[in-house]
Amino acid sequence: MAIAYIEDLARHEGQSVTIRGWLHNRRSSGRIHFLTVRDGSGFVQAVMSRNIVGDELFHRADHLAQETSILVSGTVRADTRAPGGFEIDATELQVVSESKDYPITPKEHGVDYLMDRRHLWIRSPRQQAILRVRHEVIDAIRDFFNGRGFVLADTPIFTPAACEGTTTLFPVQYFENETAFLTQSGQLYNEANAMALGRVYCFGPTFRAEKSKTRRHLTEFWMVEPEVAYATLDDIIELGEALVVSVVGRVLDTRRRELEMLERDTTKLERVKTPFPRISYDEAAEILKQHGRPFESGGDFGGTDETVLSQQFDRPVAVHRYPAAVKAFYMKPDPERPDRALCVDVLAPEGYGEIIGGGQRLDDYDLLLQRIHEHNLPQDAFEWYLDLRRYGSVPHSGFGMGVERVVAWLCGLEHIRETIPYPRMLYRLYP
Amino acid sequence: MAIAYIEDLARHEGQSVTIRGWLHNRRSSGRIHFLTVRDGSGFVQAVMSRNIVGDELFHRADHLAQETSILVSGTVRADTRAPGGFEIDATELQVVSESKDYPITPKEHGVDYLMDRRHLWIRSPRQQAILRVRHEVIDAIRDFFNGRGFVLADTPIFTPAACEGTTTLFPVQYFENETAFLTQSGQLYNEANAMALGRVYCFGPTFRAEKSKTRRHLTEFWMVEPEVAYATLDDIIELGEALVVSVVGRVLDTRRRELEMLERDTTKLERVKTPFPRISYDEAAEILKQHGRPFESGGDFGGTDETVLSQQFDRPVAVHRYPAAVKAFYMKPDPERPDRALCVDVLAPEGYGEIIGGGQRLDDYDLLLQRIHEHNLPQDAFEWYLDLRRYGSVPHSGFGMGVERVVAWLCGLEHIRETIPYPRMLYRLYP
Repeated sequence: MAIAYIEDLARHEGQSVTIRGWLHNRRSSGRIHFLTVRDGSGFVQAVMSRNIVGDELFHRADHLAQETSILVSGTVRADTRAPGGFEIDATELQVVSESKDYPITPKEHGVDYLMDRRHLWIRSPRQQAILRVRHEVIDAIRDFFNGRGFVLADTPIFTPAACEGTTTLFPVQYFENETAFLTQSGQLYNEANAMALGRVYCFGPTFRAEKSKTRRHLTEFWMVEPEVAYATLDDIIELGEALVVSVVGRVLDTRRRELEMLERDTTKLERVKTPFPRISYDEAAEILKQHGRPFESGGDFGGTDETVLSQQFDRPVAVHRYPAAVKAFYMKPDPERPDRALCVDVLAPEGYGEIIGGGQRLDDYDLLLQRIHEHNLPQDAFEWYLDLRRYGSVPHSGFGMGVERVVAWLCGLEHIRETIPYPRMLYRLYP
Repeated sequence: MAIAYIEDLARHEGQSVTIRGWLHNRRSSGRIHFLTVRDGSGFVQAVMSRNIVGDELFHRADHLAQETSILVSGTVRADTRAPGGFEIDATELQVVSESKDYPITPKEHGVDYLMDRRHLWIRSPRQQAILRVRHEVIDAIRDFFNGRGFVLADTPIFTPAACEGTTTLFPVQYFENETAFLTQSGQLYNEANAMALGRVYCFGPTFRAEKSKTRRHLTEFWMVEPEVAYATLDDIIELGEALVVSVVGRVLDTRRRELEMLERDTTKLERVKTPFPRISYDEAAEILKQHGRPFESGGDFGGTDETVLSQQFDRPVAVHRYPAAVKAFYMKPDPERPDRALCVDVLAPEGYGEIIGGGQRLDDYDLLLQRIHEHNLPQDAFEWYLDLRRYGSVPHSGFGMGVERVVAWLCGLEHIRETIPYPRMLYRLYP
């Protein structure tokens, strides 16, 4: 009998197949078992009738517990009422291994309880839906860049120096005599790569030793960072817009069923089209004042500020030209107003916060050196970075987009912890 | 005038375009400059004739140094002798930024000298070719798995416990009270993910604090690891074969020019077809004895042993069923010979060593617990892993494939350090 995955049942209509999976749920009447089976690719109901399989096999299925691993064989039958469009008329069932007292039952569990059992929690339909959206987001990002001539150039995780101060860095003893820091961003290396390959991106895990415990922060998260030689701030805002629209469109195209399972209001996602509204930092500050936020001009926006701003628009909003003082040392100042940086943050709608941060980089050697000193950074560690301004410096820009923030937004999640299989947070290192 | 990338010149034949890039090389006669320009997407020769551009502009190009950033405008002309098929008849040239005494000249430099300047070295045609092959290898791997119903499920970098002993792990202080270890493999988490999603893979950086200084080892390297519920050793060997054949085919299809630049003998890669020869550990040991290797049966193979073995075959060879004693605690024993593990290593041809390692996992609760104790591993840390055998255990298998080893093999490189933009090794953390 052919082995089939549940997601492929349409190809097997009318045929006899074997599904290899786990029992997700069971309802029984005296004469029929309704077994919901999952195999990782989907869920399907197997209908087992006592008349057909006989008493012995029927009774074997009487006491099957949730998450028992089973092989179910039977005929694939189309059924428009079934979520996947098909059911199986079971003719055979084989238990692979039992599952006694599976700890995650259909009843409600607390979040800590579930997080301690994250390795099992991910078997639930809701968590599977989120992880499939995550998969799609990542694939859509890569397709976007690969289709536009970008070269994936991985930047190192072990870095010798801190990019923006060491307070939120994880240090690692690197053999006997050196200390490495886990990367917070591949950007500096991306700049070197862009000088070599023109259009590049890195896509890997990044690390922040932030002690804050918020629903938007992980200590380990994945970020895609494009960098483009000869690109200006405006170029990179356009690139970011196109990326976000492309990713949202892809998820709407291919993951409707998952978004439905998550009860996501997709009409809000359908509004995500270019162009995004673009407002300056000053305009944003004005909006916050109008909404009674206790915001001091010149400072950075807090989480609640971002929420208020994002709620003014029905699509992501690009906020540009922040005060240079609150931004990193490598930002290029706006020639028309040098106390402002040529930078941009893109805030997701519905209060999901910053999903993109980037801008145009400082390409002048002397000014960069001055900034390195002003920020008390060790010049030695940045000699290679200064080289990029010594040998054929060019205007260049880039940004970073956090995968988990995007997944939380697209799935409509309260907390970022569900967007990655094994979230790492201040008090969470297990499993 | 339209801005164009060099790789897109075919679309602009006969048109006037501007290339934004860097001067790679210059030859001049009294009346003509031949300027080789690179923009990250390719290299093109711009021909600048004094008759056409006039004395002033012609002299401006007289002393342009290597890696000066320039904008070159002119008409795109097909030329079958040109490596990319096109040349540019220059009409305008603008210097963006100078490049004085660029440290990497066409003359030979030592490896340490180049590695210290890796951020500039990657601008060279050879390094660019390697990085483009790397990009393609990674993209081919992802397409392979995504096209076969696998879900990308990222496994954590911070792990609470050591998978195979702590001697080659990098510890990280995780806030006040905990120690995390940087992952050496996502496999244990992959197993949990496969129980949830059926067919999964993770693809991220992994870390080994190995003090050995060999041409095959990095402390930070990228690995793809598929894991499949209900798969046996044979299934996973087939999956590995198909993956390798698919990746090699893709690189041959799309990166011919890069392989040519690297002077790779592609006839050797064209032989990489399924099925791969499969030999048992005992057969491999016999081959080593025949070739006079001082090999002690029961032990693991060394680098030279792997080279000798791989040289017996014109394609990758799968060596299976090693002694359980030299393999990790989670390997399933061969039921027909319990002192052997149901594992496989795939060795690349031409002495490039192990590119794949994997096998069938122990799915029996009692035996796994016994192994954890035999290996003196802390049971507490593995409770979640034991859960996978408590709740619906199933046969399952997977493997890991190292990206850098594959790139080194496909590019025909002596040393693995050129396969990643910023290699990390025992004595190499900069730039």
